[in-house]
Amino acid sequence: MNLQDIYKSLECDLRLIEEDLTKTVYSSVDQLQASSVHLLEAGGKRIRPVFVLLSGHFGTNDKEKLRKIAVALELIHSATLVHDDVIDDADLRRGRQTVRAQWDNRVAMYTGDYILSQALQLVSQLENPEVHQILSMAMKEMCLGEIEQIRDLYNGEQTLKKYLHRIKRKTAFLIAISCQLGALISKAPLPIVRNCYLYGYYVGMAFQMTDDVLDLVGDEKTLGKPAGSDLRQGNVTLPVIYALKHDTPENKKKIKQYLESIGESGNIEEIIDVVRRSGGIDYTSRLSQRYLMKALSILEKLPMSQANQSLKMLTTFVVNRSY
Amino acid sequence: MNLQDIYKSLECDLRLIEEDLTKTVYSSVDQLQASSVHLLEAGGKRIRPVFVLLSGHFGTNDKEKLRKIAVALELIHSATLVHDDVIDDADLRRGRQTVRAQWDNRVAMYTGDYILSQALQLVSQLENPEVHQILSMAMKEMCLGEIEQIRDLYNGEQTLKKYLHRIKRKTAFLIAISCQLGALISKAPLPIVRNCYLYGYYVGMAFQMTDDVLDLVGDEKTLGKPAGSDLRQGNVTLPVIYALKHDTPENKKKIKQYLESIGESGNIEEIIDVVRRSGGIDYTSRLSQRYLMKALSILEKLPMSQANQSLKMLTTFVVNRSY
Repeated sequence: MNLQDIYKSLECDLRLIEEDLTKTVYSSVDQLQASSVHLLEAGGKRIRPVFVLLSGHFGTNDKEKLRKIAVALELIHSATLVHDDVIDDADLRRGRQTVRAQWDNRVAMYTGDYILSQALQLVSQLENPEVHQILSMAMKEMCLGEIEQIRDLYNGEQTLKKYLHRIKRKTAFLIAISCQLGALISKAPLPIVRNCYLYGYYVGMAFQMTDDVLDLVGDEKTLGKPAGSDLRQGNVTLPVIYALKHDTPENKKKIKQYLESIGESGNIEEIIDVVRRSGGIDYTSRLSQRYLMKALSILEKLPMSQANQSLKMLTTFVVNRSY
Repeated sequence: MNLQDIYKSLECDLRLIEEDLTKTVYSSVDQLQASSVHLLEAGGKRIRPVFVLLSGHFGTNDKEKLRKIAVALELIHSATLVHDDVIDDADLRRGRQTVRAQWDNRVAMYTGDYILSQALQLVSQLENPEVHQILSMAMKEMCLGEIEQIRDLYNGEQTLKKYLHRIKRKTAFLIAISCQLGALISKAPLPIVRNCYLYGYYVGMAFQMTDDVLDLVGDEKTLGKPAGSDLRQGNVTLPVIYALKHDTPENKKKIKQYLESIGESGNIEEIIDVVRRSGGIDYTSRLSQRYLMKALSILEKLPMSQANQSLKMLTTFVVNRSY
């Protein structure tokens, strides 16, 4: 079984989800309609919906409810992306202009707010207070993760612990609750719901580490944005933290000077190259493999099924992907 | 009874609400803590909490639940203000620097997102799906109202109908649901809950019209921002719409030229003066009085009580206030 097979088994559900995404953001205000559709069309892997759908198989697999959760989570994810692009002054995402580049920061802010409110309205139809509690906590954590990231831009004094804490908030939490909510809404037993959360958490951590590696090793064509975007924006990821600790004094100095000057001094292409050759990428990849193993070991504890098999394939894919 | 008396009877509850507001936005991230507290300290009249508390008297008056709703609504209101200030490039609000002026647009965006997520988390404690449905709908309507306002900046081709539609979304809806939720969470009978909503809607409409008049007739000291701020930002309010329809050809031309040039041509002080003397302020005040009367007539239909009396005083005050 490969990734196409996993997505194939969900083909019908995913098509309905695409339809729901479009329907949900429909607005009679032209500007909102245009910017929302622009955002959704930028696509992405829809991995949060896939995690919701697959986790639903550990319970009653109530497809209508699962679809609502899946659509809401993808919308929340999209809303945070459009706000993040404002924070990062980003012009490109997945090879397309960002909403803020195509229109402006104000439109991006309100498109995000609008999409978030639509997600909340959709979830409120489920009439399940626990879902609300989990979602609102996740939203708070994501905000905190982003604010921490802003605070720590160009900060070279970071630790592994701080990095892990930040990517948990920024990425892993939403993937964790995608799995948790899929199982929960399908009335799976509590220990299974808990393991789904934990599984999603480990996958999410590994997923973000892979993202941070790809940002350095990928090329602009596959990334859909310039290589080294994180470093260009001052976002100090694990490979950089590693280089700052273990590289030669000369190289450390180069990175430090770049960061201390808030990106004003030093040749960014050279800095990216220094990080690439520091061993930080290998270190980050190995750590991400450890999280992958933890995720797989949780799957072993969950009931065996075709969905479990699919999750196993998906886990391995999202961590080892090259785009 | 005067306004002080109304607030006095709620003094204890309002003090607890202030405490809850501060507690709810507490964050270990210094930046968020500072910007959130800055926003809350700017204060305001806390009229949404007051409407929640007073409407609760039409039912069981469950103070703990009412306080959660009141705090959540004030936080949602604050979150929209901080985002609106980004949209409007506003530097001053209530005589203080706005979050975006004190820090920057990015901090303002995330402060708003964070405060909103905290409000949602608070409301999720109530475990009441209907409250969620009402709130998420209100949030959507407010987004649409703001987007419509951006779309129609410097647009001189506006009608009364369009203006009413916009202020309903922008302001009246949140005040309407403050009253509705206060009654609903207190298990008031459905016809009372509905009338509370309707009452709040009429008050909210009148409230915004008063705001739009004060923006033109007030001075910088009482307003806490320059007089004519709306027009300076291109926000075409009812007095301007009236002037564009009923003033002398010469004056209409002045306003039109100002709007068509997106504020680049024409003396803004002169334009403000033209609008002031156009009769548009009187027209808007009279319309706001009509909404005030409608609000009071709904109160007549609600059970008579001290809370009802207080609402009557408050209604008259918020519409006829001079600050």
